[in-house]
Amino acid sequence: MLTLGSTSITVVAVIALIAVGALACAFVLRRQVLAAPEGTPKMQDIAQAVQEGASAYLSRQFRTLALFAVVVVALLFLLPGDTGIRVGRSVAFLFGAGFSAAIGYLGMWLAVRANVRVAAAATRPGGRAEGARIAFRTGGVVGMSVVGLGLLGAALVVIIYREEAPGVLEGFGFGAALLAMFMRVGGGIFTKAADVGADLVGKVEQGIPEDDPRNAATIADNVGDNVGDCAGMAADLFESYAVTLVAALILGKAAMGEQGLVFPLIVTAIGAFVALLGVFITRVRGSESGLTAINRGFYVSALAGAVLAGVAAFVYLPGSFDQLNGTAELGDVSALDPRVVAAVAVLVGVVLAGVILWITGYFTDTNKKPTAHVAATSRTGAATVVLAGIGVGFESAVFTAGTIAAAICAVFLLAGGSVWLALFLVALAGCGLLTTVGVIVAMDTFGPVSDNAQGIAEMSGEVDEEGAQILTDLDAVGNTTKAITKGIAIATAVLAATALFGSYAEAVTHALSEVEERGSGLVLSMLDYEIISPVTLVGVILGGATVFLFSGLAIDAVTRAAGAIVFEVRRQFREHPGIMTFDERPEYGRVVDICTKDSLRELATPGLLAAFAPIAVGFGLGVGPLAGFLGGAIGAGVLMAIFLANSGGAWDNAKKIVEDGHYGGKGSEAHEATIIGDTVGDPFKDTAGPAINPLIKVMNLVALLIAPAVVALSVPADANHGLRIAIALVAAGIALGAVAWSKIRANRENVASEESEEKASAVV
Amino acid sequence: MLTLGSTSITVVAVIALIAVGALACAFVLRRQVLAAPEGTPKMQDIAQAVQEGASAYLSRQFRTLALFAVVVVALLFLLPGDTGIRVGRSVAFLFGAGFSAAIGYLGMWLAVRANVRVAAAATRPGGRAEGARIAFRTGGVVGMSVVGLGLLGAALVVIIYREEAPGVLEGFGFGAALLAMFMRVGGGIFTKAADVGADLVGKVEQGIPEDDPRNAATIADNVGDNVGDCAGMAADLFESYAVTLVAALILGKAAMGEQGLVFPLIVTAIGAFVALLGVFITRVRGSESGLTAINRGFYVSALAGAVLAGVAAFVYLPGSFDQLNGTAELGDVSALDPRVVAAVAVLVGVVLAGVILWITGYFTDTNKKPTAHVAATSRTGAATVVLAGIGVGFESAVFTAGTIAAAICAVFLLAGGSVWLALFLVALAGCGLLTTVGVIVAMDTFGPVSDNAQGIAEMSGEVDEEGAQILTDLDAVGNTTKAITKGIAIATAVLAATALFGSYAEAVTHALSEVEERGSGLVLSMLDYEIISPVTLVGVILGGATVFLFSGLAIDAVTRAAGAIVFEVRRQFREHPGIMTFDERPEYGRVVDICTKDSLRELATPGLLAAFAPIAVGFGLGVGPLAGFLGGAIGAGVLMAIFLANSGGAWDNAKKIVEDGHYGGKGSEAHEATIIGDTVGDPFKDTAGPAINPLIKVMNLVALLIAPAVVALSVPADANHGLRIAIALVAAGIALGAVAWSKIRANRENVASEESEEKASAVV
Repeated sequence: MLTLGSTSITVVAVIALIAVGALACAFVLRRQVLAAPEGTPKMQDIAQAVQEGASAYLSRQFRTLALFAVVVVALLFLLPGDTGIRVGRSVAFLFGAGFSAAIGYLGMWLAVRANVRVAAAATRPGGRAEGARIAFRTGGVVGMSVVGLGLLGAALVVIIYREEAPGVLEGFGFGAALLAMFMRVGGGIFTKAADVGADLVGKVEQGIPEDDPRNAATIADNVGDNVGDCAGMAADLFESYAVTLVAALILGKAAMGEQGLVFPLIVTAIGAFVALLGVFITRVRGSESGLTAINRGFYVSALAGAVLAGVAAFVYLPGSFDQLNGTAELGDVSALDPRVVAAVAVLVGVVLAGVILWITGYFTDTNKKPTAHVAATSRTGAATVVLAGIGVGFESAVFTAGTIAAAICAVFLLAGGSVWLALFLVALAGCGLLTTVGVIVAMDTFGPVSDNAQGIAEMSGEVDEEGAQILTDLDAVGNTTKAITKGIAIATAVLAATALFGSYAEAVTHALSEVEERGSGLVLSMLDYEIISPVTLVGVILGGATVFLFSGLAIDAVTRAAGAIVFEVRRQFREHPGIMTFDERPEYGRVVDICTKDSLRELATPGLLAAFAPIAVGFGLGVGPLAGFLGGAIGAGVLMAIFLANSGGAWDNAKKIVEDGHYGGKGSEAHEATIIGDTVGDPFKDTAGPAINPLIKVMNLVALLIAPAVVALSVPADANHGLRIAIALVAAGIALGAVAWSKIRANRENVASEESEEKASAVV
Repeated sequence: MLTLGSTSITVVAVIALIAVGALACAFVLRRQVLAAPEGTPKMQDIAQAVQEGASAYLSRQFRTLALFAVVVVALLFLLPGDTGIRVGRSVAFLFGAGFSAAIGYLGMWLAVRANVRVAAAATRPGGRAEGARIAFRTGGVVGMSVVGLGLLGAALVVIIYREEAPGVLEGFGFGAALLAMFMRVGGGIFTKAADVGADLVGKVEQGIPEDDPRNAATIADNVGDNVGDCAGMAADLFESYAVTLVAALILGKAAMGEQGLVFPLIVTAIGAFVALLGVFITRVRGSESGLTAINRGFYVSALAGAVLAGVAAFVYLPGSFDQLNGTAELGDVSALDPRVVAAVAVLVGVVLAGVILWITGYFTDTNKKPTAHVAATSRTGAATVVLAGIGVGFESAVFTAGTIAAAICAVFLLAGGSVWLALFLVALAGCGLLTTVGVIVAMDTFGPVSDNAQGIAEMSGEVDEEGAQILTDLDAVGNTTKAITKGIAIATAVLAATALFGSYAEAVTHALSEVEERGSGLVLSMLDYEIISPVTLVGVILGGATVFLFSGLAIDAVTRAAGAIVFEVRRQFREHPGIMTFDERPEYGRVVDICTKDSLRELATPGLLAAFAPIAVGFGLGVGPLAGFLGGAIGAGVLMAIFLANSGGAWDNAKKIVEDGHYGGKGSEAHEATIIGDTVGDPFKDTAGPAINPLIKVMNLVALLIAPAVVALSVPADANHGLRIAIALVAAGIALGAVAWSKIRANRENVASEESEEKASAVV
């Protein structure tokens, strides 16, 4: 039995202090952001409306999710296992979920205050650098908080639970992932329903610009940026951080014992310094673009992180595996130096982050061929724009997935044939990838803040042309950074999920050894991970199918909610003709209410699907097919997530190319074609795509948590096939019932909205 | 060692005679079709142009592919194995490829003669029933030929090679699948480039109807229907037939010995009777729709097939497994009756076909909610139409894949835990599914023939309104039958691939036993199919990525080729203003030439990718990751294929709903929105989607063929890692080089076409 020595405890305590330090830095940065001038009263008025809408939505969302969390905690208690661990895991679940929610709320809270300050900065001389600085510092606050809270949570669990920490941390990661998934889905539906609805009536039907104050959906659109792109993203990256750490700690303990449990914490603590460095060195010099500055900040801080991690490996780890006391059977690893393999694995992760940054930039940047090609197809209409964007998305997905696969292969080769060591190194590569998470969060927050700033400027009408151009430039940079963040986030999902696969196998083996009997016949095939078994292959198909269904549900939810908003905005224009002549003020609040109501209702179905599908497959078909299910979900998930994110990014920037005056410029047919492309891309890149990342992790963690129960009900010693099948049927019933319920309701609403629309047209 | 008894040989000889009988029936049906009147000289003129274009394209395509076939035969010789088998396999490859090509050519040859006869029939009284009869009989010819040639090929190989037949049949299936894949890709690019190009300029820019003779792309569009939807589809279904039979024979021999080798042939011979029955009982009664008649024909003949197969199982198979001498370790199957399990497995296949028919009809039919919903979203513009169609596609993919998965699970349960028996039963279910293939082919051929007939009627201007309505109705039925065929085809791919997975494992085990030494360390992990291994998971990701890349390449190829056609048609309108006033005749031939040239050039890249990706993964990462690769390709492939087919079908029929007068009808904004949806769907449903079916099989068969070589180069006994890695690098180089070459060329062309277009606009 492993016991943590006092040196390790000291190291972990220091790490906890570093985490507190990171939080303190976040606090200082926050003060700096809030110290900037707030702009004119009109700007503040608009910002106030956005703040209220965003707070109201998140509060209602948290109340809804609190109920769900109580149910999950109850279910966690029902799982077999040691009582202490079960209590700890449930408490950790609540902490993980709470931290995830807190980070999301904080991100939103600050973003809705930073946006007006960025808009105000754009009106002053030197506004470009100042605006970028405020936006990036805002991101810095969120980034430092993500790192600080993630590290603090993990370090405290290790200090309290010592060698039992991994089991408890599963709860922490699960809570973080589950809440992040709901925030991604709910926020994603909110933001894109508002955005699509606003564009369809405003830009397309009425021919008024984006963010025009006459459009009743503009405030909702700005609220959406904050609850989706900001709060959802912050929670998502926090959960990436937490889950990767959980995987690394579980596998580190198995492969390298005490040092393996502590080293991943050291690597991520280095991430705190890297984030701080990144936030402070990122400054726009002279007339360079914001993207250049951000890229420079990223690469410099990533390099610093890699060097520090290498030093840490050589200082902290011993020179041979004999000096480590892992519990897993590593095989013959005498030829390997733990310091070298650990340092190289972290380096692979850092390099992977850099390559993804580059690939995503290549496929979505306005200056590169793929997006230029999408823009060029606008000459032959919207259909070719959509097709070209889909082509770009597929291709970029393949190259990104190929790069991630190559990184896993590289790490696998590094392990010299030891599967257990390879799994730990994959997790370490994930930690390496995440040393840059602070900078990444800062980069991503940049997007919604500058987008909102532009909106406030447009609505207030109090920013001159030069200021508006500054904000437009910042917004375009935000588009690319947002796409990059999604690539990085999904890479962490693949690495964490791959590593968690190992934990899953370990959990199954452990459960088997507890019942002290391996079954035969049907049970053997149920415990069989061989992919050539027909049922395992069925698992692979079902895993991929879950990703497709989840994506389809998210996209449908946006289409539906956007439709409701289109009808509401049209109604306001129709019933209040004074809006168009600026004589009447649109009822912004009604659109915010519709978005809030619809998003909260629509998030239930994909959430239930994600949580219950693995339960149905696991109890129904066994642990082998469940492994296949996870594999299929990871394979289809990574491709789908990147396809959705990058085709969306390419369409968005293709529109910007046309708006910059190519192929006829604003108002031309080519412009209209690219607007259609961009609208298709909206739910792709901001609703369905980013939610796949937490989806994969939630399903992995559910599988990990239920594995012992599945084994217990399957092996002949105490098999209870009736209960097993009953659980599977109930889970499948909940998942499919939620889908069916959502369909029935949607059909009813379609009919209702069609009738009311027809009645309205009849009146007119 | 198994030796076939004289009874078995007699049975197989009778089956060969049945195959010849099926071919004779096809000949009789062909005479009936050709005996129908050919219509007016103007119609014949148009039909002549289509015939010439189609023949010219297929001839050039076959010349190009002949070269490729020579290279493949040479590579097949290089694989390790017994010389006799290698020669037989290479010859069988040529036969498989030749039969596939012949079926495709025949389908095209007859379709281009039937179309004008259907158009002529529509001008006569009672035209609806007569037109439907000719179109359906044309399909009957192709259907009977598919069944006849497939069965004849397999029966002859069994008679000649006896118990060695399975190894030789791999070559037959591989040839059929490879050629079908190229025909699907090439024909698919041709047909959709012409269709999209014609629509973009004709319908969208010039506002002239589809198939208007002033549009220079109409003849090419009609040629495309024949080389893509007709020739490509016929070859595709032939290869489904051949590969499923191959899988069933290999596994049947392993699981049940002699009887297992012969029984699948009996089941498919029954398919010949079923097809004949289906073709003859399918008659349009009174005013019922063509679809009702086709559905009735399908269900009645499917039922007859199931009953006959059940009878055959009870007559031919013994009552216990002890009386069978399979070579595979079945485990304890004493409780099972071979007759019952075989009959039920076939029944599962037949039921699966019926359920897929129903699901596809539900998601794509104009009278059902999903397509009606897509049509309704046209009120909010093209973007929501595209999004709604994607949602429908994702969902239908999930339900279809779920149904296939359920069928596999059912068959697996039937086998009572014996994996080998389960694999054979999966293959038998595939045979059951294929007893309906004759009717399916007839149904599918219905589509392009009636589409072409409509085109000829429109272009000749010699069909009155009533006749035109008849042809429009027939065309709408064709849209749904085409979608159904794709669902069935992809189901055969999943079943055949799942079963071939077993053959793959058998090939690996056999190769291992030959080198008489199992390796350890790195080699062990290379031979490990466990999905939880990181490299196997990498295989899963790469398999899915190949499907995404293949789809993206196919869609891009269509976008590109369609762009070239748009510029050509625009040029003709610009330089020959007399075309618009009917004073000048457009140069149809130039558009056909562009389509021919572009399709042949574009089919190389996806083809090389499919053939070389599994070689790169297999030699580079090992047989375990290659299994993962296949699993990932199957999982992502089935979902992607159905998503693409059904979203395309839903868009097409949503357009028809609007054209029928809803939401403003023809010429409204809603109509324009659905045209954009339909255009996006064109390459989805007719290029990328259907090509995934042969893609999956080609990759499976390549894996099966190279497995022994991979093992030979990997196990310590005679490992040659240098050669192994070299082969992997060359294969990866060819696959990625083809992709890169295609990109570079595309960029060059984009620049060139942009310049010429700009120059042209400047002149104007």
